[in-house]
Amino acid sequence: MKHLRKELRFHTESESEVVNITRSVEAAVFESGVADGFALVYPMHTSSTVYVSDSDSSLTEDLADLLSDLVPESRPYRHNVTDSKENASAHLKAVLTGHAVTLPITNGRLDLGTYQTVYYFELDGRREKEVIVKILGE
Amino acid sequence: MKHLRKELRFHTESESEVVNITRSVEAAVFESGVADGFALVYPMHTSSTVYVSDSDSSLTEDLADLLSDLVPESRPYRHNVTDSKENASAHLKAVLTGHAVTLPITNGRLDLGTYQTVYYFELDGRREKEVIVKILGE
Amino acid sequence: MKHLRKELRFHTESESEVVNITRSVEAAVFESGVADGFALVYPMHTSSTVYVSDSDSSLTEDLADLLSDLVPESRPYRHNVTDSKENASAHLKAVLTGHAVTLPITNGRLDLGTYQTVYYFELDGRREKEVIVKILGE
Repeated sequence: MKHLRKELRFHTESESEVVNITRSVEAAVFESGVADGFALVYPMHTSSTVYVSDSDSSLTEDLADLLSDLVPESRPYRHNVTDSKENASAHLKAVLTGHAVTLPITNGRLDLGTYQTVYYFELDGRREKEVIVKILGE
Repeated sequence: MKHLRKELRFHTESESEVVNITRSVEAAVFESGVADGFALVYPMHTSSTVYVSDSDSSLTEDLADLLSDLVPESRPYRHNVTDSKENASAHLKAVLTGHAVTLPITNGRLDLGTYQTVYYFELDGRREKEVIVKILGE
Repeated sequence: MKHLRKELRFHTESESEVVNITRSVEAAVFESGVADGFALVYPMHTSSTVYVSDSDSSLTEDLADLLSDLVPESRPYRHNVTDSKENASAHLKAVLTGHAVTLPITNGRLDLGTYQTVYYFELDGRREKEVIVKILGE
């Protein structure tokens, strides 16, 4: 059995930003030497989220807009009283989008569909953030 | 360590359709010979989703209705301008429902609760689609 | 390769309740002897959900409120006609919040960010419920 823990680091310029991380995850899979297994792509923060979607970048803007409608920043959240960062909506958007993903590895590569792209969605940026790629297999 | 990659294929007659795939996933677990491990049930498309819920089929209709209210097809999505398939809402529903599931395997079987059912939710059908069951364990 | 299946049991006093289960999952990881791997925290019911979020308990109330707005209990669900428990909204909230989580294990411990907390969210309580912690690794 083989395993690898790879750290990806982010510091976005905007508070909200979507980053295509497919190549970084692929690089970690290659480095692990795992031919068959799983790659868990896991944000170490609860105000960011990782998801898989279509390669079209305009869809990432549609997702950001939808989440802003479903989880408005201006809602009176209790967390924004107890925590000065006032990022309750960021945390809740991360829960609704699943926070982390587990991806299949086959023949030493991410086993994704043609248009599938792995995205890091920063919901509370302008500071240091980390995502762990944890790989397990043989 | 053992592993298996099994492909399930779908071609639904409707644009939106829910299919109970519990038995197909069980069959893959049996074929893998894995007694203890994980089964990742992973759609190779970003306009379909896999989720676990109650066996009552009327609940699948409730979910479809709820998603249509939260992510209306008629919203003016950017993706529907850049992509002629006009399936933005399908992609976004897949993100909100988590896209894929990881299931426990114990004693050579899916380790599910009494009423738990594994569903494939086609959100943009009438064409060939695939789901990977990737199994890892011993 | 090592593996462990640990059962956590719940019987909440309220219909809806959030329980911090981080220590119980940590204890299962320790018991497994796994240094590097994954912990799948998986509810055996479809009317409860497990998620990772910030340690601030007021945020758990914000999440409960948000979900009650997005998936109102009073909506006319088909499931509430076919099933006398009338818990359709509980099932649907579990789908929207992802139902289960897979967590990284590194150096024999849950590999979580500083403020990350693992929550069991009971959506239809006052009865016996179980969560499986299934651990795989070496």
